[in-house]
Amino acid sequence: MSEKTFIPLSVPNFSGNEKEYVNDAVVSEWVSTGGSLVPKFEQAIADYVGMPRAVACNSGTSGLHLAMMMAGIGAGDEVLAPTLTFIAAVNPIRYAGAQPIFIGCDDTLCLDPKLAEEYLQANAELKDGRCVSRVTGAHIKAIVVVHVFGNLADMEAIMDLAARWHLIVIEDATEALGSCFTAGRYAGKYAGTIGDVGVYSFNGNKIITTGAGGMVVSNHDDWAEHAKHLSTQAKADELHFVHDEVGYNYRLTNLQAALGLAQLEQLEGFIAYKNEMYEFYRERLDGKHNYRILPFRDGTRSNRWFYSLFVEDAHPLHRDEIIRRLSAEKIQTRPIWALIQDQADYPQNQHYGTGLARHYLGHIVNLPCSTNLSKEDAQRVVDVLLSL
Amino acid sequence: MSEKTFIPLSVPNFSGNEKEYVNDAVVSEWVSTGGSLVPKFEQAIADYVGMPRAVACNSGTSGLHLAMMMAGIGAGDEVLAPTLTFIAAVNPIRYAGAQPIFIGCDDTLCLDPKLAEEYLQANAELKDGRCVSRVTGAHIKAIVVVHVFGNLADMEAIMDLAARWHLIVIEDATEALGSCFTAGRYAGKYAGTIGDVGVYSFNGNKIITTGAGGMVVSNHDDWAEHAKHLSTQAKADELHFVHDEVGYNYRLTNLQAALGLAQLEQLEGFIAYKNEMYEFYRERLDGKHNYRILPFRDGTRSNRWFYSLFVEDAHPLHRDEIIRRLSAEKIQTRPIWALIQDQADYPQNQHYGTGLARHYLGHIVNLPCSTNLSKEDAQRVVDVLLSL
Repeated sequence: MSEKTFIPLSVPNFSGNEKEYVNDAVVSEWVSTGGSLVPKFEQAIADYVGMPRAVACNSGTSGLHLAMMMAGIGAGDEVLAPTLTFIAAVNPIRYAGAQPIFIGCDDTLCLDPKLAEEYLQANAELKDGRCVSRVTGAHIKAIVVVHVFGNLADMEAIMDLAARWHLIVIEDATEALGSCFTAGRYAGKYAGTIGDVGVYSFNGNKIITTGAGGMVVSNHDDWAEHAKHLSTQAKADELHFVHDEVGYNYRLTNLQAALGLAQLEQLEGFIAYKNEMYEFYRERLDGKHNYRILPFRDGTRSNRWFYSLFVEDAHPLHRDEIIRRLSAEKIQTRPIWALIQDQADYPQNQHYGTGLARHYLGHIVNLPCSTNLSKEDAQRVVDVLLSL
Repeated sequence: MSEKTFIPLSVPNFSGNEKEYVNDAVVSEWVSTGGSLVPKFEQAIADYVGMPRAVACNSGTSGLHLAMMMAGIGAGDEVLAPTLTFIAAVNPIRYAGAQPIFIGCDDTLCLDPKLAEEYLQANAELKDGRCVSRVTGAHIKAIVVVHVFGNLADMEAIMDLAARWHLIVIEDATEALGSCFTAGRYAGKYAGTIGDVGVYSFNGNKIITTGAGGMVVSNHDDWAEHAKHLSTQAKADELHFVHDEVGYNYRLTNLQAALGLAQLEQLEGFIAYKNEMYEFYRERLDGKHNYRILPFRDGTRSNRWFYSLFVEDAHPLHRDEIIRRLSAEKIQTRPIWALIQDQADYPQNQHYGTGLARHYLGHIVNLPCSTNLSKEDAQRVVDVLLSL
């Protein structure tokens, strides 16, 4: 028998023009922040998601920091945010000098707008058109919603909530490039294009990658311009190096954009394959052997970036032991993130309705989901899981 | 006669293994923050500058922000910093919540330690081993020194000043990779390795480039570890996504490191050529036609990253007009940076002894200095300058 190969959780797929475009960039010696490919990639992403303009940056995290600054979040403000997500959705609130209030999730793993409403009813009031905390007196200025694993959050309810409470909506679509609504008020709308600001990520584990990178879109044209300005050290005079704000170096490079352009050509194919392999796992594992494969929201076309295996309490093995057994078989999986409210100095922040998030935290295993995952390898994952 | 070609100010030179190494990275599909090349590049830079450890990051700016956090600079602190430099040397002080105090330059264009001493004598005192401002009561915790254009600052005087006043020394060596002392107390020591923290940049205009990128070194081993931790979102548990601090995504990618490794192989050759072309300009322009070519510090081997043409007041044309005339001849040059104390909201900060900086500000033109600048092109620059 041949040696078992390693099955990674999520790795890039460069079966398109990646090598050619990157090589062209190196040969041209345009690899830094100048060159024509960054604006080309910006426009290509804008066109793809149906927005007039997109602003490139060097990571999803820097995109989220730009989003906070675009929204005018500053010292003393508070921002509603999910507790069950990658910590990069929340840290930028702190970079801006503000504080998060952690809200739990619904069964899509995304922030539950009903819980946010309950929190605000109990702890906030509208004063002169501002949502003001009765706990701290702070201005609750915005809500960050993450489309977890490519699953769209309940944007109708979130936008209604935001309208009622005068909140800015920051959509963390870092995991959800290509996910869109197919029914309801936002039919045809892509993740990231519904709120005030949307942020995408092109990190190595994402559905398309630039190595590291991100993109920001906004329904306010001047906010997008401001993001571009802040991401380029707020340089107001190219020649004389005059800067009119405290800016950042958050620029994407031409070399990274070359990779991104080749990846974007493949995106719809990747999404089709992600959906196909999701069904592959679902047919073989959902409802079997005390496993569930968590569904994606109805009325959406999801990029199905990450697949979530839910391990029922009746399963003889703990979730972490399942991960260990898979690892022994050279299959890389991971648990969902620890709750952010338990990390760093975030235990001092307010949190509300986070019981369901804690429940999911204990039970989810993310299965291998690379776009070059073969059916043979996926079957090996299934076989190991059913043997446990 | 043939059409004149454009002579850029400073562009990359990929005449080595850049294409091969980058291609290998793309073919391997290791282009993001995993992969073997980031640690390899870190070690290669550490070995080059003679330090045990170097920590990669995604820009010189993020490296300087890491330096602030390594040094424990926080809200309410003050930091001495140059007024005549690129604004990225100062903005990270603000990212950390602290305030800069601007100090002028000496004739090397670097921060003048005598002016810093005068400022501190007049405005600060040591209290319980801390340098405390008599103006604001704040703790003046550190000094940022920039090795401007690759010219080493007066590190003996700066280190003595720092010892007297208990200041942490942050060396912004973003422009000075490869510059080192050849005489005096620090003979053999490279820019960035003398103070508490040193930061390099691999931006597209620097002597070697990774497109965008930076590196941090420190004479405190635990500070370097802390920088690595902060640059990777402060992830304390790889599997369970537990984070013990508010961290950042400041990672360099494997793709960028591939480029950096190829560039580093060429660095000594680049420095030799930069020195040769500096002499080329100096012989033809220094002391002629109301021009000076500014010297580099004695007792050093400089990378001579940027060449500074000083236009005497007796010259019939203003500095900006000279830049315009060169531009009309397709020769790209630039003035030295505007003083930071005049920009963004920095006019509200303290400044001291900045007259000489303002004098240089009005008179300097940076000449084309790419490592692939031909002698024919350099002669064209000289000819135009002598014709004005």
